[in-house]
Amino acid sequence: MAKENQFVNQIADIETDFPRWYTDVVTRTKLVDYGPVKGTMVIRPYGYAIWENIQKELDARFKATGHENAYFPLLIPYSFMTREAEHVEGFAPEVAVVTVGGGETLAEPLVIRPTSETVIGEMYSKWLQSYRDLPILINQWANVVRWEKTTRPFLRTSEFLWQEGHTAHATEEEAMEETMKMLGVYKEFAETCLAIPVFTGRKTEKEKFAGAVATFGMEAMMHDGKSLQAGTSHYLGQNFSKAFDIRFLDKDGTHKYAYTTSWGVSTRLIGALIMAHGDSRGLVLPPVVAPVQAIVIPIAAKKEGVLEAAATLKAKLRAAGVRADCDASDNSPGWKFNEWEMKGVPVRIELGPRDIEAGKMVLVRRDTHEKTEASLENAAEAVQALLAEVQQNLLRRAKKRKEERIVTAESAEELLRGVEGGNFVKAGWCGCRECEDKIKEQTAASARVIVEGETAGKCCCCGREAKHVVLFARAY
Amino acid sequence: MAKENQFVNQIADIETDFPRWYTDVVTRTKLVDYGPVKGTMVIRPYGYAIWENIQKELDARFKATGHENAYFPLLIPYSFMTREAEHVEGFAPEVAVVTVGGGETLAEPLVIRPTSETVIGEMYSKWLQSYRDLPILINQWANVVRWEKTTRPFLRTSEFLWQEGHTAHATEEEAMEETMKMLGVYKEFAETCLAIPVFTGRKTEKEKFAGAVATFGMEAMMHDGKSLQAGTSHYLGQNFSKAFDIRFLDKDGTHKYAYTTSWGVSTRLIGALIMAHGDSRGLVLPPVVAPVQAIVIPIAAKKEGVLEAAATLKAKLRAAGVRADCDASDNSPGWKFNEWEMKGVPVRIELGPRDIEAGKMVLVRRDTHEKTEASLENAAEAVQALLAEVQQNLLRRAKKRKEERIVTAESAEELLRGVEGGNFVKAGWCGCRECEDKIKEQTAASARVIVEGETAGKCCCCGREAKHVVLFARAY
Repeated sequence: MAKENQFVNQIADIETDFPRWYTDVVTRTKLVDYGPVKGTMVIRPYGYAIWENIQKELDARFKATGHENAYFPLLIPYSFMTREAEHVEGFAPEVAVVTVGGGETLAEPLVIRPTSETVIGEMYSKWLQSYRDLPILINQWANVVRWEKTTRPFLRTSEFLWQEGHTAHATEEEAMEETMKMLGVYKEFAETCLAIPVFTGRKTEKEKFAGAVATFGMEAMMHDGKSLQAGTSHYLGQNFSKAFDIRFLDKDGTHKYAYTTSWGVSTRLIGALIMAHGDSRGLVLPPVVAPVQAIVIPIAAKKEGVLEAAATLKAKLRAAGVRADCDASDNSPGWKFNEWEMKGVPVRIELGPRDIEAGKMVLVRRDTHEKTEASLENAAEAVQALLAEVQQNLLRRAKKRKEERIVTAESAEELLRGVEGGNFVKAGWCGCRECEDKIKEQTAASARVIVEGETAGKCCCCGREAKHVVLFARAY
Repeated sequence: MAKENQFVNQIADIETDFPRWYTDVVTRTKLVDYGPVKGTMVIRPYGYAIWENIQKELDARFKATGHENAYFPLLIPYSFMTREAEHVEGFAPEVAVVTVGGGETLAEPLVIRPTSETVIGEMYSKWLQSYRDLPILINQWANVVRWEKTTRPFLRTSEFLWQEGHTAHATEEEAMEETMKMLGVYKEFAETCLAIPVFTGRKTEKEKFAGAVATFGMEAMMHDGKSLQAGTSHYLGQNFSKAFDIRFLDKDGTHKYAYTTSWGVSTRLIGALIMAHGDSRGLVLPPVVAPVQAIVIPIAAKKEGVLEAAATLKAKLRAAGVRADCDASDNSPGWKFNEWEMKGVPVRIELGPRDIEAGKMVLVRRDTHEKTEASLENAAEAVQALLAEVQQNLLRRAKKRKEERIVTAESAEELLRGVEGGNFVKAGWCGCRECEDKIKEQTAASARVIVEGETAGKCCCCGREAKHVVLFARAY
């Protein structure tokens, strides 16, 4: 037990020092490491495997909704950035600029894509001729670079991995439908695969994407009650089609500008997973995206037949499609329990000589630490059933917290008390930027999304008539 | 027929103008387009789907041989490049350099990775402690940038997509075994999936990777008899472990430098596919990597029930795992035949009212244009069997050409005649750089690989005793 405690002590206390807990967990579980260039990260195999599972799930959903993948260049002429006024204002300050190539100073500097609306817009302008070519439904999996001052692994890094969907449509209605459809795909994915319930809704003008007509976001509640923007879907109207001349010959014989959208989620989702489900012992990974779903720990491993039985069990589980592994290292069982708990593996399987003799195994679930026994004969079915239960329970638990931690406020003071108590706060807002800025200043909370279908009396800041109910929270 | 001819005329003649044929085919079939920055490419959905199939096949092989995926940063401190003498000499002239980030001039310029031995070496140095941590078997799927003067889509572009495996081992033997194992994986993949038989072997000092002790390559013969380097596997010895201090505490209690390897294939493979199998009508894609394996063309599509029957057939094929599509556009059948032939779809299915009545369909294979009939009832089995045959036949055909087009030469003149006739040429070589350079100058052919197990009399250049038999060819 001494060793166990010592091990848990490697992680800071989740309740008293959440930021430190986060850093400890992501590095000690080998999800990520710091790259040599400030603000960059190395996604290590254990972290990358989560990303691969996320990609697989999302990619299937994108394809099922008619999207195809493509790949556009990393490097964008600097001048492209300046064609859409809001876009350049938002992104120019944070781009990395290539000025030398092949030993020579470039005639025009190039930016490393911070996002690809411009270069993709340029290509769509070339490809789009007739209404028959619409809609264009393309997604790309790529790396992007945004020069960030304050960085944290997965949450905010100078380079990150993401997907960015870019579509073009004949009408405003179709483009808006696409925008909302993809927001819905993200929400369903977050709940089904990440076990994270989210708030979705329109962003305020201040919080919207630089160049969008409207941005819709999904916000997830983290362990500390702060919000994390986990994905966004933008209705771009004709802003980029006018800037990049994305036009088509319509049925009526006239040339029209297309309506475009873009939508993205990134490796930030890994940060969301960690901070939504983690506990004092470390990671708690939802089975759907966990790199290892079940870890077999041999007990009294030196006794004859134990390691063989553990290997057989692992093989049996893998054959049934469970991502199973076996820790046959010469560390003690206690050390292994802690290690794999910290790594967030949903189900631990203990298998010792007596279990083998009795034809059974001990299952310990990561979320509740509950122990059960199951027969070795039906091992795969038992493990799969337990994985499904863990997945469901994580979502249930997160939903419960999400519901318990919403309060309403009628003044800035109430709003402050709400967010200080680790809550999301619904409050009336008059709609003006001044109040939005003032609230941020006084409470460190920002408008996460505008709440649809609810009406408020007064603005919590100025007391004038409220235009919207807004969900406020401190955010990552 | 007039329309058909007109359509085929969109592509230059493959025999008389192969470079133009290539450019025509890659752009007209929408595999690729030119990016706005000189030398960059946009991989369009039809091209990217081939890459996805290549990735899926390779990734499964990497994982089956114990490798895990990870992701390392795009940006590398310039100083890293200079730590390995040969490496900097080889790569420094072709890097893209970031000098500005977040609006400020950077203290140290950063290079966009042209390959990742340096940054990965830095991380391995940090991660590697004990012999227990070895081997490290990591692969990454990523984009890289190399500033190229002369570019062609897929074959040589400033940015391309690839995978790069980077491994570290305790001993020279293990590292060499890994190097050869991955070369073997590439070769098996090229033959099984791409239907491209390859020559594998060690590269000469001149042709090896900058920083490697030894490079092993696989070379594929293209339609015009030129060679394309389709993949390489490098034994790096301790060159990078010494430059980046990749050391471990061995069982004997002493610190030792690890032995490392790296190996990669890229989107160049798409170029290889095109140039190995293409014919006068356009692409010929091997079924294993073809985005569309079978295209259903409704005949007399306006007749009642035809479109419905075509849609049902498509759905049936898809349910059986065939990547099937149906061209229900209002173009003529003749136009569609040409279009999908040009796009290289392995099997075309013609389905008209009489076929439907008779419960059958017409199958036309892309490789031989042979027509057969099959019952609609067993449609999936018939199509799958035909796809397997096409795959086999493409490999057989390519093997035959590869065997027929190898000649031997005893002098530089014979070598020149050989390569001018579109052959690969085996010739003796004394082993000196001077002769290698001279042969290149006189014949435009370079040493592709050293042929193992064969002995030659004299060097074809200087007439001195030959050290190796070398396979020479003109190369992309």
